Amino acid sequence: MKNVRSIKTSTRVCAIIGNPVKHSLSPAIHNAAFAELDLDFVYVAFRVEDVKHALAGMRALENFRGMSVTIPHKMEAMKHVDAIEDVDRRIGSINTIINDNGKLLGLGTDGPGALKALKDAGVEISGKNVLMLGAGGAARAVAFTLASNGGPAVIEILDINETILQELTADLTPSTQAVIKSNKMTDNALAKAMAAADIVIHCTPIGMHPKEGISLVPVELFRPGQVIFDIVYTPLETKLLADARSKGLQVISGVEMFINQAVLQFERFTGVDAPVEVMRKVVMEQLKP
Amino acid sequence: MKNVRSIKTSTRVCAIIGNPVKHSLSPAIHNAAFAELDLDFVYVAFRVEDVKHALAGMRALENFRGMSVTIPHKMEAMKHVDAIEDVDRRIGSINTIINDNGKLLGLGTDGPGALKALKDAGVEISGKNVLMLGAGGAARAVAFTLASNGGPAVIEILDINETILQELTADLTPSTQAVIKSNKMTDNALAKAMAAADIVIHCTPIGMHPKEGISLVPVELFRPGQVIFDIVYTPLETKLLADARSKGLQVISGVEMFINQAVLQFERFTGVDAPVEVMRKVVMEQLKP
Repeated sequence: MKNVRSIKTSTRVCAIIGNPVKHSLSPAIHNAAFAELDLDFVYVAFRVEDVKHALAGMRALENFRGMSVTIPHKMEAMKHVDAIEDVDRRIGSINTIINDNGKLLGLGTDGPGALKALKDAGVEISGKNVLMLGAGGAARAVAFTLASNGGPAVIEILDINETILQELTADLTPSTQAVIKSNKMTDNALAKAMAAADIVIHCTPIGMHPKEGISLVPVELFRPGQVIFDIVYTPLETKLLADARSKGLQVISGVEMFINQAVLQFERFTGVDAPVEVMRKVVMEQLKP
Repeated sequence: MKNVRSIKTSTRVCAIIGNPVKHSLSPAIHNAAFAELDLDFVYVAFRVEDVKHALAGMRALENFRGMSVTIPHKMEAMKHVDAIEDVDRRIGSINTIINDNGKLLGLGTDGPGALKALKDAGVEISGKNVLMLGAGGAARAVAFTLASNGGPAVIEILDINETILQELTADLTPSTQAVIKSNKMTDNALAKAMAAADIVIHCTPIGMHPKEGISLVPVELFRPGQVIFDIVYTPLETKLLADARSKGLQVISGVEMFINQAVLQFERFTGVDAPVEVMRKVVMEQLKP
């Protein structure tokens, strides 16, 4: 069992930066995984306002190997790294930074975490009609990843904010062979989109703690065979998922995306396969009601 | 027993920076002390070349509470902190940085560590004749601290390098009521100085591993009642100390200064009394032949 007493001069440091960070689960998840595999790493949390200098410091501090970036710094952090993966530049945000001998590589694992959650659940994306509810930062990450890697026939996006909706549509269209549709979120548009969707991915904060018990999607719009994925994970089962489950639909909780984004970060930090079940157990213990 | 699994978002980080740092004992010493007192702290090591940005990072990373600064950065680090204690500005180097809500305070614990080693050994400094062998960075820290706090009647300094000798003498003279004498290190000057000294503090690398078995001071120069303090701590007992001990003199090993500089850092990092015996035990385990 690894102990702080066992930390050595060789121990590599990873950290989450954000503001606030005090409720982050990331230190618990990653340290449990490091301990499980007896890796010479430790993971801490730093509240940060000045992202530029936080990253300058990471670059200068050898052994500061990896960083998780959370709200509100996912866009700002892009300006201060030395390289960004192409898809993440198009998404416009990153949640992970790897320090490779003083060169900082920025990348995102939110979209790939969502894709892995769908694949792990056995969901076939290729050729399917995907409905995205919401066009904000998380939706961008998920949409670009699915568009680039999943091969859907159609991605339809609804949002009440037409500005971000049009931005996402314009950015996404040249990056994919999928048909990209977008519409302002109205009762009518939602009903039509639900009638066509095979996979519904909910990327708005509706139904998130402390405003539980509400759902964007009227129960009568669910159709047999649909897969409903809610990226919200507090609560573990939102009203959207409970409603869908009551109709017999396959549901995927946002906690799977959350676990997988951490799994993918861990594997970039360490270069070894993550102990997924240990990480899942920590998350579930922290989130249990 | 504290475990990396127990690291939380509130855990405060301390680190040593230097180049190299891989042989540093500081992570072992401080983590053992944190664990002993069950403090929510962790201590890591960062090799650093770019001190400016390492400190900019420390400032930006809330929870990065304390830093130990070692060779070759003890002077450079002064340029990049927000405040320096007066005595340390005169000494011209720091070994400790405290991050107080984004404001970096630089200070030195080498000199105070030496003073504490003398006091802990029951040595009376007030009114005494102190002979310093060597005028380099460590000698400066010790000389300024004794001059400011110990009340010696005379501090005589010998060095083969007349430039640093004159600098230290010029800097020290206006800071103290003690009489400051300095002379180029020669056989004759050493013999005269040893004839007058009550306390001898050796601050050169002579006798340090791997060049053990040599001493600046011929055995015949020791006089009954003298206290001999060697700031070298590898080996734990240098030839200088072994010779002095064979003549029945009180001797103090540099390891006491090394432990005390860490003790004083720990107390600045945490605000609580250090578990000195735990820290001593770690140092002794690491240094035992």
